Formats: sequence, structure tokens, C-alpha cells
Amino acid sequence: MDSEQLSFHAHVPLSKYSKRVILKTIFDRSSDELVGERVVVGGWVKSSSEVRKEPLPQPPPPGAAAGDVAAATGPKDVSCGEVLQTRISFFRSIMKVLGGTHNPIREKMESVIQKLPPPPSIAILQVSDGSCVSSLQVLVDSSIVSPSQVMPTGTCLLVEGILRQPALQGKRDIELKVEKIMHVGTVVQDKYPLSKKRLPLDMLRDSSHFRPRTTTVASVTRIHDALTQATHTFFMNNGFLYVQMPIITTTDCDGFSDKFQVTNLLGKETKKELVTMDASEGISLESVRASISEKSKQVEELKRTDSNREALAAAIQDIRKTNELVAQLEAREKSKLGTSVRTEMVNFSEDFFPRQTYLTVSGRLHLESYACALGNVYSFGPRFRAQKSESKKHVAEMWMVELEMAFSQLEDAMNCADDFLKFVGKWALENCSEDLKFLSKRVDHTIVDRLLLMTSMPFQRISYAEALEVLTQVKDKKFEANIDSGVFLTEEHESFLVDEIYKKPVIIHSYPRELKPFHVRLNDDGKTVAAFDIIVPKAGKLIRASQNEERLSVLTTRIKELSLPKEQYEWYLDLRRHGTVIHSGFSLVFDLLVANTTGLIDVRDVIPFPRSHGKANN
Amino acid sequence: MDSEQLSFHAHVPLSKYSKRVILKTIFDRSSDELVGERVVVGGWVKSSSEVRKEPLPQPPPPGAAAGDVAAATGPKDVSCGEVLQTRISFFRSIMKVLGGTHNPIREKMESVIQKLPPPPSIAILQVSDGSCVSSLQVLVDSSIVSPSQVMPTGTCLLVEGILRQPALQGKRDIELKVEKIMHVGTVVQDKYPLSKKRLPLDMLRDSSHFRPRTTTVASVTRIHDALTQATHTFFMNNGFLYVQMPIITTTDCDGFSDKFQVTNLLGKETKKELVTMDASEGISLESVRASISEKSKQVEELKRTDSNREALAAAIQDIRKTNELVAQLEAREKSKLGTSVRTEMVNFSEDFFPRQTYLTVSGRLHLESYACALGNVYSFGPRFRAQKSESKKHVAEMWMVELEMAFSQLEDAMNCADDFLKFVGKWALENCSEDLKFLSKRVDHTIVDRLLLMTSMPFQRISYAEALEVLTQVKDKKFEANIDSGVFLTEEHESFLVDEIYKKPVIIHSYPRELKPFHVRLNDDGKTVAAFDIIVPKAGKLIRASQNEERLSVLTTRIKELSLPKEQYEWYLDLRRHGTVIHSGFSLVFDLLVANTTGLIDVRDVIPFPRSHGKANN
Repeated sequence: MDSEQLSFHAHVPLSKYSKRVILKTIFDRSSDELVGERVVVGGWVKSSSEVRKEPLPQPPPPGAAAGDVAAATGPKDVSCGEVLQTRISFFRSIMKVLGGTHNPIREKMESVIQKLPPPPSIAILQVSDGSCVSSLQVLVDSSIVSPSQVMPTGTCLLVEGILRQPALQGKRDIELKVEKIMHVGTVVQDKYPLSKKRLPLDMLRDSSHFRPRTTTVASVTRIHDALTQATHTFFMNNGFLYVQMPIITTTDCDGFSDKFQVTNLLGKETKKELVTMDASEGISLESVRASISEKSKQVEELKRTDSNREALAAAIQDIRKTNELVAQLEAREKSKLGTSVRTEMVNFSEDFFPRQTYLTVSGRLHLESYACALGNVYSFGPRFRAQKSESKKHVAEMWMVELEMAFSQLEDAMNCADDFLKFVGKWALENCSEDLKFLSKRVDHTIVDRLLLMTSMPFQRISYAEALEVLTQVKDKKFEANIDSGVFLTEEHESFLVDEIYKKPVIIHSYPRELKPFHVRLNDDGKTVAAFDIIVPKAGKLIRASQNEERLSVLTTRIKELSLPKEQYEWYLDLRRHGTVIHSGFSLVFDLLVANTTGLIDVRDVIPFPRSHGKANN
Repeated sequence: MDSEQLSFHAHVPLSKYSKRVILKTIFDRSSDELVGERVVVGGWVKSSSEVRKEPLPQPPPPGAAAGDVAAATGPKDVSCGEVLQTRISFFRSIMKVLGGTHNPIREKMESVIQKLPPPPSIAILQVSDGSCVSSLQVLVDSSIVSPSQVMPTGTCLLVEGILRQPALQGKRDIELKVEKIMHVGTVVQDKYPLSKKRLPLDMLRDSSHFRPRTTTVASVTRIHDALTQATHTFFMNNGFLYVQMPIITTTDCDGFSDKFQVTNLLGKETKKELVTMDASEGISLESVRASISEKSKQVEELKRTDSNREALAAAIQDIRKTNELVAQLEAREKSKLGTSVRTEMVNFSEDFFPRQTYLTVSGRLHLESYACALGNVYSFGPRFRAQKSESKKHVAEMWMVELEMAFSQLEDAMNCADDFLKFVGKWALENCSEDLKFLSKRVDHTIVDRLLLMTSMPFQRISYAEALEVLTQVKDKKFEANIDSGVFLTEEHESFLVDEIYKKPVIIHSYPRELKPFHVRLNDDGKTVAAFDIIVPKAGKLIRASQNEERLSVLTTRIKELSLPKEQYEWYLDLRRHGTVIHSGFSLVFDLLVANTTGLIDVRDVIPFPRSHGKANN
């Protein structure tokens, strides 16, 4: 069968590993080349209609195989059933008159109609195989298969047929007249979530396993693929080495993000130590616990307002210390017997890893190990934040592109980030024009203009101080949050700079030290740090970058200032103790780049299986 | 400074984002082009030696800048210190005679020697920047910097100098005479783990942050990078779309692997419900718990012997049910008060995700969602197994390449897997010859031959039954494990087939159903399933593949047979309910491919930050 099939595709190559022709290879060719070709295609029905055999205008014989005409005209003998078929609408109107659900005459009549062979007809199916936006028009005669079996949206088909010019002139150049059905995967129509046409994407978030069958998510997937390939190509062209960063880690990358813990202790046989204790002497455990609860609330408040990071880090540190106190109290009380307070301690030494481990928030610290040996390196993988916010731009699990360059200063990282965004933007414009056109029409008509803007001119570069100055001079706009030195710019501030003032992507650099993590290099003024963010229209903050502190003493001081657990960072400090180097890098939230490119700004619509707070379905 | 630097590299391009010349671009050029060029290079010292100034033969002026000669000859005036320097070895022999540690004369003399200026000398440094195996010979005159500062292995340098022909004829074509030191990152010699030469890699597993500075791990990283690029290129060339698979999942992919749990409940304020209960009536909770413990041991035993998977799945299921019983008992007892048994239940509804979530073991099930809409798709990401085995080929966190193809049968997957391995193998041979040569010498002299074997001929394809037959006919070899139908082939069996019988990679297909997961398609004989493994010399099992069951009824029966929790798989069954399609795919342990290509067969040596049982250092 293999060689037979290979022989009859003269002008369209077979898909290498599936003995069928990919639809894109059909649409990439002119119809002149294709008419009369016998091909096998597979895909899923996007929409369908049915025409009665008689009214269908007979297409001029397309010079194809003789069997074609026979198939198009169908069985010739006019049976009794066929005569009855022509009268069905008449019977139906009688039935309406008879009415009621339990009318015996109606029931009898219905059963007769059901037993009738279906009227000869042709099912016209729009079939997509995911290789491009366009669907192929596929015609199936009812003599081959019952239309009701193949017409429901979502039906999977593998068919063999002849390509021909459409009988009815329309926007299509080519259609397929089916001669043989090789596979039908039916659909349970009332249970299939895509049976309804043009369901809004947010309705489909609970059926993420079916979303790629929508034209929109299929386009998003192709653009996601293109941006992935562009990313690897950019770094390969520029001599970067790809390095896998660990997902499970014991290192807290910034000191203030909520992290997921990885364990083997839950839900198996209980391995936790239950500690029963008497807390009546000295410090009351209950009161300490109450203070933790109070402090937690403060932290949540600080996080919510997204304000001073140093204050946040200090508050978190405070809780950590109080927790330690609790642990000590518990340990001290452990040997004593009593019943007044019952609590528990998790004994991590019994876990798979003997220390507490987390899902990584960022791979940049680990990536430095490789930059401090091999020069320019990058990574591309999933990163995790157990953030309960309802922001559209963040879910628990997102992919990030991270890079680190030895012998490189902040300005080098700016140039690299600028080049990178231009490269991947151009790649999308060149390789995804059909998908961008579709999404422009369906989702956001500004996507192409935004890509052109990003790829055609240098980004605006301003310092944080300049940004504040520019914003405070704005008179005709009242911002929700005040513009104060030492606090974060809000999304509103950032988008005003990008959309209203500079009208292009903006690089904001030289942030106050309180606003950036401990590892960012302190500038000579002692107040600002060598970091920048890139803000783009619509998506907002796409890239966070920094030159990282290469001076051991400064880094140690920063860790102490923020009361971070120094023992966790010993390996990181080692990189400064031995052969330290000036280096810089950035991280880009890749899913946000996809969101920005496709115009679907809620990342839950562009991530294949999004995991957010309170949601994890499969 | 930027433009000035750019101007003086006539023949060697600057690294785009770091204002230095990458060493590989120097070695890629002939020395004729390079002599006399002024360049900036950066890197880390791999080894060093020091020569006294006088005995160094004066190189013929290489027609370079006048400053060169002056720098090479150094300061001309002969100071008192310099005279003393020439006598140091004489003083040292006197000191030896004086002996003892507290001899005042010796101490006085030592302090005089220490205060002397160092003798004029030239430090000869082998500097690597990670871009290739070779190091650049860099000469630094002691008048520029004290040799003791730059000579220790691991020192980081950024220097400017003139390229010239080496003064001493040797294997090198070119060396750098330093004129300006721009950065030195020193090393604390006795604390730097790489100070010793040629430390075995396994000694370095606890210092994984420094491993990339070894020539071996640098080579591994470059090969890893090349194989990554080759992987993406193969799939791009063949029309596959890249899709990110979720890391956090609620779905158990095969029903028998140990999984990591993801939670937000531990180590914070205690959120677990402590249940105090009286278990004196009816079934004794303690006896149920004892039986769980007993059953767990059985499971461990089954896992250890790596035998019948169906028995294993059943045993695990049995434990699951018993655990459920415990939970029910606990729930029933919850409202009662008592103290005889204390236990606890984790309330997952209070966790970040409201259901129990795991780190994914495999992305293939999720990938099917995309194949069943878009045709050919692949993924490349980290996968996790909480396996306590001490196998060299597995650690807790490994990257896998997975693909899924719609309208594709098992044979198509075989062709694809065969093509894939040949493509990436050829890519490595063409792009990593220097690294392969180095690793051949240092690690395993068979790596190039094995790559040639893999890329030059079709793999042997045999069924599991044929494999058994061939193995039972082996007379001159006694295998440790018996060859019985329905049990796994051991590594010993597999490597015998590959190394001794066929002498090339072997594809073993049509396994008994008991040996493969529930989703593998049942063959028409009702006994075997449509799966295959690819076994290669040295690494062993590199690829696991299957055509997955597209028939809803068969799949449902399989899930029932294995007592798997059907509710977890409802979304997966949905793909069969609506528009089901024949499809196949495979998964490849990428880190094992790297191990195989580099000859470092212990994957802990090729994974950047390996996580294995009892180990997670950073």
C-alpha cells in the first residue's frame, strides 16, 4: 500500500510519517498543478453543509479518473424509498398537524421515515488538519457514508479522493471529491464542547484538551512554534550555548516570590512526626502563631499594593524568623508530654531530597554558573510562582527565556534584548503571515502594526528617575497610584509612557536598589542598581534584566541587609570567590511574548494547559 | 571606547554583546591573518607556568606596535632587589640548614625575602573562554601584574594584547602578549575545588556550579547544545509544531511511576487538619495501616525486580484502595472524640490547586490533545520520577523529547525515530568534531564509531517474541535473569542483543500487554500491544514508543482492568469520544542521548544540576 500511495501523488509530497498529504502543501501550490491528483488527506471537520443530489449542478468532467463521474452521480436506480424521500417534507407537515408526543399515527409515521434510506445527497465539509488556517472543502457522497456520520463539527476523517476545481465558483480554488473513506472518528454532538460555533475562548478554559481544535488556538500554537524556533535560531546565530536549568531547587532566587514545594511526604503513609507538646512555660506558642498570622496579612497587603520590595523582603524575612522560633519552641518541647497545644513538624530529612525543595522561580542564578565558564549561555524552560493574584499576565507555570553573558555590562544586555525582540518579531512577520492575518481579524487588529513598530526602530532608553520626571510633568491625566521615588511604577504608569509619550517600546533602567533583587549590581551612586525592564505596548513588562553583582563583599552585604538565608547562597557566592567576572543577562516571559504577538493578552488563552490558582484540571 | 575597540580588530570580529574576541574565532583563522592584531580576550586560566625573564629567548620583533618590544623586555634598571632575587635559591638552602619553625634567624630572613619585589618574570597562562576545547596561550609580564595573582587555575582575566607567533616553537600557532589587564577575578587557591588537576568528575558532583569550568563538562555542554539545536531543526524540517507540556499535572501518566507532589501546604503556617480519633470499633485502623506497610514492601520488591508491570499496577492500586479505606475510616471517626490513635489528613482543598497535583512523569498524554487537532507535534521539557533506584541512567529530573503524530501507525513512529537518531547523530559528527575528539581521548574512545554505526545503517527490527527466541538460543552465555515470556528483558539481555548479536541499534516491538502502560494500542491478537523500544549500544534503552489506543471501548476496558482512577482520565477519554484518530509517538530521554554521545554514561555527569535521591544542593 505504501508504494501504491507514493505513486499517485505526482505533485504533492506525502507527509513523511503518516501516508497522507498535509493540507498546507496543497494550498502552497497552484490549482493547475493539482487538478486531477489523487490524494489522501486527514483532518477534523470545522463546519459542514449538505446538498440534495439533484439540485447540485453537474461539474464538467475534470479530465480525471472515470470513476469520478460515477461517484458524483451516485446510484442510478430509483427505488421506492427514493420516491418516498422526495415526499418527506410533505409527511413532516402532516406530522406537525397531527402534533402531540404520544400520537400513535405520528409515531408510526416517524418510524417509517426513520427506516427509509437517507435521500441521496452530498456532504460538503470544511476539513482542517492544523497545518494552516485554511480548510479544504471535501465532498462526500451519501452513497459512500451517511452524511450524519461525517458532518458534525469535530469529526475526524481520513479520506482518499481526487482534487478538482469547485463545481460552484467561490473563493476556493480547489476541492476534494472523496472516493474512499479510510477512517471516521465520530462525535457525540451534544457533549462536544466545540459543537457550537465561535465559542468565546474563555468558555473553553475548562476544556483545554479541545482548544487546539479551534482556529484561534491552532493559530496561536503555530505562532508559538515559530517564536520558539526563532528564539533558538537567534541564540545559535549569536554563539550562545543552550543549558538546561534545574526545575527542583533549594535556592530562593529572589527572596520574595511565593514558591511551590516539592515533596514525597504527602498522601502516602504518614511520615510526618506528630508533636504533642505543652506550651505553658515561657513564650506562648499560641501567641507567636497569632503574630505570624498578623504578619502574613501585612505581607499580603504589601504584595497586593506591589510597593517597596525591600520592605516586603524584610517582612517575609521577619515571618521566616518567627517561624524558626516556633520550630525551636517545638523542638524544645518535643520530649515533654502534654496535651494543651497540638502541632506538627514536617521532617524533611525523611523526604526524597533531604532538604526543603521548591519549583524554581527563575533559572538566572544557576545560569551564572555556566556563564562564568562558557561565556554566553541561555536557557528556555518552565518557571513557577505560587501567586494567588488574578492578573491576566501571570499563571502559576510559565515558560521563560533566560540568558547570561560573561564579560558583559548592562548596556550589552540592552542591545541583546533589543536585537532579540526585533529578530523574533521579524521572524513572526515573515513566517506567520496567514495566522497573523486571521488573528488580526478575529482578535486584535493592531498586532501587525505593533510588530512593525517593535522591529523597525530602536527602543527608547530612559532611567527610572527620568521616567518619574516625565510622568510627574503629565498634567492632563490623573494616575490611580502616586508617582513617588522608590516605589514601583504601576502598569498604568508604564503603559502611559509607552502608549502616550514615546509611542514605542521603552527600556527603563537604573532602578532604586529597593526595587530589585539582591543579586543586581549596585551602581557607583550606592542608591541605584544596574537593572532594566522593557515595556512594550499592550503586554507591558516583557523583559527584566540586570548586570549581576560580581563583587563578593557587596553581594554579601546585600544578602545580610535583606536578612536572606546566606547558607542557601554559598554556592552562588562561590562564583565570586573564585574567578569572578562582570556579567549581565535578562529573562523574558515567553508566554507573554506569545500573548503579545497573537493579541490574546490573557496568557491563559495562549498557554497549552494553564495552571492558575484554584485550577488544574488535567 | 566602543568605536576605538572596534577599529583595532581588523580580522577577528568582536563578540556582539561583550566587546571581546571569542577564542573560537581566533582558532578558526590562520595565524598569518592574526599576527600583529590587537585584541581583547576574556576567560579563565586552565593551567599556568612562569619563566624567569632572562632565559626567555627574545622573539623576533613581529613587525607589531613598538610598545610590544618594550613590554617584552620589561623594566631595564637592575635594582638591589633584583640582585637579591638572583640569590634566592642560595638563601633558601641556608634556611633549610637553619631548619625549625621558630628559628629567629630563619624568620628574619623569610621576612626579608617576602618584602623583596618579585623577580621579573613572565606568566604563561592557558586561558579558555568556553567557546572551544583549545586554550589560548597568554603571556603576562610581571611588570603588568604579579604572576601569583593571575596564575592560579580558575582565575578570570579580561586582557588586551597583541597576537603573535609563539617565541618557542610548539604545537601552538598563535599566542597573546598582554599589554593591559582590564579585569582579574582571583581564586582562593586552597578552597577552589578545581585547583587540583584532572579531578575525576564524580568528585565534582557536589560542586556542580564549578563543573562547567572543566574541559570535559564544557565539551559536554557544547554537545548538549548542538543536540538541542539538532532536535529543534529536525522537527522544524519535518513540519512538527512545538508545544509546551504542563509540568504540574493531576493526571498519572502511566499508573505506576513514583511521583513528586506539588504543594503549598508544608512549612507555612500549619493548614492541615489534625484528626484525633477513636479506632476501637469495627475495623482497626492500626491493622489496616500495618497491611499498607506490608503491601508497600511488596510493591518495592516488584519495582526492584522490574518484573510484571500489570502485577505492579495492581499492587499499587490495591494500596490506593486501602488508603481510601483509611481515609473513609478517618472521616467516619472524625466527629468522635478519643485519643487512642492519632493520625492526620491533608486537606487538599486548601492547597493552591484544589486537587492533588504532581510533577509530570511524561507529557505524551497531554501532547495527544494537540496531535488530535494539529497533526504532528513535539515537546521538549523536564520530566520527573521520584525513583529511589541508584541507576546511573536515571535521576529525579530529566529532560525528554516527546512527539505525537496523528494519522500515524507504529511503523511510522519507527521510521521517525530511526530518522531522528540518524539526523542528530550526523549533526554531532559534523558540528562537534573537536569536542568528540577530546572526549574520545579523555572518556571513551568508541564514541565516534558508535555515532557512525548509528547514522550509517538501518536499525534491526525484531519483535519481543523474536528477541526471546534469539536469546534462548544463546548457549555460551549464562544470563543473570531468566528469559521468560511476559517479563521485561533486562539490561543484560538488551545489551547482548545489541552488542553481540546484531551489532547495531535494535528496535524491539510488539510487547506483551502486561509490560506496557494502559494507553498503548492493543494488537489484533489481544495479547501484544503496538509499542517498541530502541536499544543502542552503551546507553541501552533510548526511546520508548507506542501507537496509542484510539478505540474508546478498548481504552476504557484497559483502565478498568488495571483499576486506574477513571475520573483522572476523563479528558483523555474525551479525545476518543469526539473525533478519535489513529496516532503514534515516542519519547526519548534526552539526557541519556547526551550521555551516549559524549561517552559519559552516568547521567549525573551530563545533567547541569542533577537531582537524585538524597541530593539537591542548590
